Amino acid sequence: MTDKRFVVTPWEVAGAVDYDRLIREFGTQPISPELATRLEVLLGPASYLVRRKIFFSHRDLNLVLKDYDKGRGFFLYTGRGPSGPMHIGHIGQFYFTKLLQDEFKTNVYIQITDDEKFLEVKRNLAYMDTQHWADENILDIIATGFDPDRTFILQDTEFVGHAYPLILKIAKRINYNLTKAVFGFTGETNVGMIFYPSIQILPSLLEKRRCLIPSAIDQDPYWRIQRDIAEGLGYFKAAAVHSKFLPPLTGTQDKMSSSKPETAIYLNDDDKTVRTKINKHAFSGGQATVEEHRRLGGNPDLDVPFQWLYMFFEPDDSKLEKTREDYRSGRLLTGELKQILAEKVIGFLHEHRHRREAARAKVRQFKYDGILAQKMWKTDFEKL
Amino acid sequence: MTDKRFVVTPWEVAGAVDYDRLIREFGTQPISPELATRLEVLLGPASYLVRRKIFFSHRDLNLVLKDYDKGRGFFLYTGRGPSGPMHIGHIGQFYFTKLLQDEFKTNVYIQITDDEKFLEVKRNLAYMDTQHWADENILDIIATGFDPDRTFILQDTEFVGHAYPLILKIAKRINYNLTKAVFGFTGETNVGMIFYPSIQILPSLLEKRRCLIPSAIDQDPYWRIQRDIAEGLGYFKAAAVHSKFLPPLTGTQDKMSSSKPETAIYLNDDDKTVRTKINKHAFSGGQATVEEHRRLGGNPDLDVPFQWLYMFFEPDDSKLEKTREDYRSGRLLTGELKQILAEKVIGFLHEHRHRREAARAKVRQFKYDGILAQKMWKTDFEKL
Repeated sequence: MTDKRFVVTPWEVAGAVDYDRLIREFGTQPISPELATRLEVLLGPASYLVRRKIFFSHRDLNLVLKDYDKGRGFFLYTGRGPSGPMHIGHIGQFYFTKLLQDEFKTNVYIQITDDEKFLEVKRNLAYMDTQHWADENILDIIATGFDPDRTFILQDTEFVGHAYPLILKIAKRINYNLTKAVFGFTGETNVGMIFYPSIQILPSLLEKRRCLIPSAIDQDPYWRIQRDIAEGLGYFKAAAVHSKFLPPLTGTQDKMSSSKPETAIYLNDDDKTVRTKINKHAFSGGQATVEEHRRLGGNPDLDVPFQWLYMFFEPDDSKLEKTREDYRSGRLLTGELKQILAEKVIGFLHEHRHRREAARAKVRQFKYDGILAQKMWKTDFEKL
Repeated sequence: MTDKRFVVTPWEVAGAVDYDRLIREFGTQPISPELATRLEVLLGPASYLVRRKIFFSHRDLNLVLKDYDKGRGFFLYTGRGPSGPMHIGHIGQFYFTKLLQDEFKTNVYIQITDDEKFLEVKRNLAYMDTQHWADENILDIIATGFDPDRTFILQDTEFVGHAYPLILKIAKRINYNLTKAVFGFTGETNVGMIFYPSIQILPSLLEKRRCLIPSAIDQDPYWRIQRDIAEGLGYFKAAAVHSKFLPPLTGTQDKMSSSKPETAIYLNDDDKTVRTKINKHAFSGGQATVEEHRRLGGNPDLDVPFQWLYMFFEPDDSKLEKTREDYRSGRLLTGELKQILAEKVIGFLHEHRHRREAARAKVRQFKYDGILAQKMWKTDFEKL
């Protein structure tokens, strides 16, 4: 995946995203109509994720559902690299995971990869920066509403020591060539980064059931190594469900980027900033003048405000379809559509930040004291 | 170091050991006559280690003594890979380190590299085996008589989590090429082994003073990487003093080997086994018959029983020289020399095992509760 216009690795997404090509090149499966039908039924209020093809690709999701049917259950695993403040693009994955937890009543493991973020030479973060962002990001993650007794937030720099025996067993089965093939590591890569896949695989082995990883497809390489080695260690190959990237405000190409603040809305952007960013930077599928727009209508497929409603901010299908139709017909103007999105985003951020304040009191529960967290800290990894 | 007759790496010593060549090829310094004179004065009862050239090579030992003179002090670091029972060849290094601690009143850090021993594919030890041997080996190490308030035994699988922030800072500065050049790692090497040098370097950075590492020269490659990166992290380059290998019973070539029990005397060999091994396997520098021996005399330089007395079991110079002279002249027969050694070894092992029993009550002190151990467990490695 290294041609100039289209690059997807765990560290970079550039160019227009061709999801069918991603499925081919990453070697994953598209979600078949049969699987989509089953999922829709199971997912209830979260079924729009399937209907709208926000979940577009998977590995072994059919086996996960089979395990669920048979009562064997499964668990969810996702993560966050704490390199800076979180934006709308980052938090979507956590809301999706929380919806899956609500529907399937599963355990969720959330890995905070503060060690990896420190080791990444490109970012050159100081160690204390990674700790600061870990604390901040954890509040945003808790704010999404996970069940504190079924969710374990494991911060690598805290948990690696406890789980070290299992990490060693993982590391013993991964050689340099494999990491080179999957991640493109070179002789210049530091030995921390080379070791790191062992730690990223750890949460997928925290239960002897199938693990489902909801993530953007760019994280898929980690799970390919997991799938190479898990069964040899007596665990299950990780299953995955891949969601599309929420496009950056500035257009339907590339991904939101922390280095280009106009491409993203941060969870702590104030109302005025949200309105300004959307009005000023959101890429529009409308026409050049109001008159032309009334006559020709807008193109919702190219319009980022519409795409944001579609992907995240308007789960109600009938409302969404009305907006689409109004926009396409020219009844709804670009400025009006932008305002619909701005109000949705502002409302979401108000609620998110309200829950984020309440999250401060829950951190210990997710990390140490909740039922699942306690169980993990009491697990004797020497005996696994 | 890979020609057929003479191989020295951290995992293998084969062929006749040419110490001058090791100095050249490892790029270390011989101990100069001036340095030897200073050391002899400082070392008191341990000065025979210098006089007999058991310490034959070093890095920056002159700087260590300078720091000592100026009151800045230094600290000692050594280690053990717990892959099996310890023999006489293993324990020598710890006795030497203990003598240095006695004379200089320094802190000593002893790393138990149980993680590395698990990761070594060649050995293929089960995880629980490494834990068993760690427990056993620690008793032997404590039995050598270290000061429990100035000595910290850090077992990697216990301490890595606590010191992880500093380990990450080390790992960030070591790339794959460097480990490849120093250790000959290949694409087949597992990522745990590739990461491991970061952990082996850790103890050398536990104080912001110069660290002196007494070891066999085959461990030197680790310190070359340490010396590349320590100053960049705000620490001192490690200094080293290298001791000769105690030759295997079977001859003055190669090293004692756990896979050839006749080459070594184990710390738990009983009296009869010791006598049998020495009588049966100890390579002799004597003549074929008693008559010839009386007439021609023996060769103490080739005689392993004499070498063992020289290297470890007879610190008294005048007694040693008398034995040498008696043997060279033919007054002392091979069987008699073997018996002298056997009694020394048996006496040593009795005392060692007596102290080893007493060591059981001291393990917690060395690992957790002694003054130095407590200080280490209270150190906030995030802030370093």
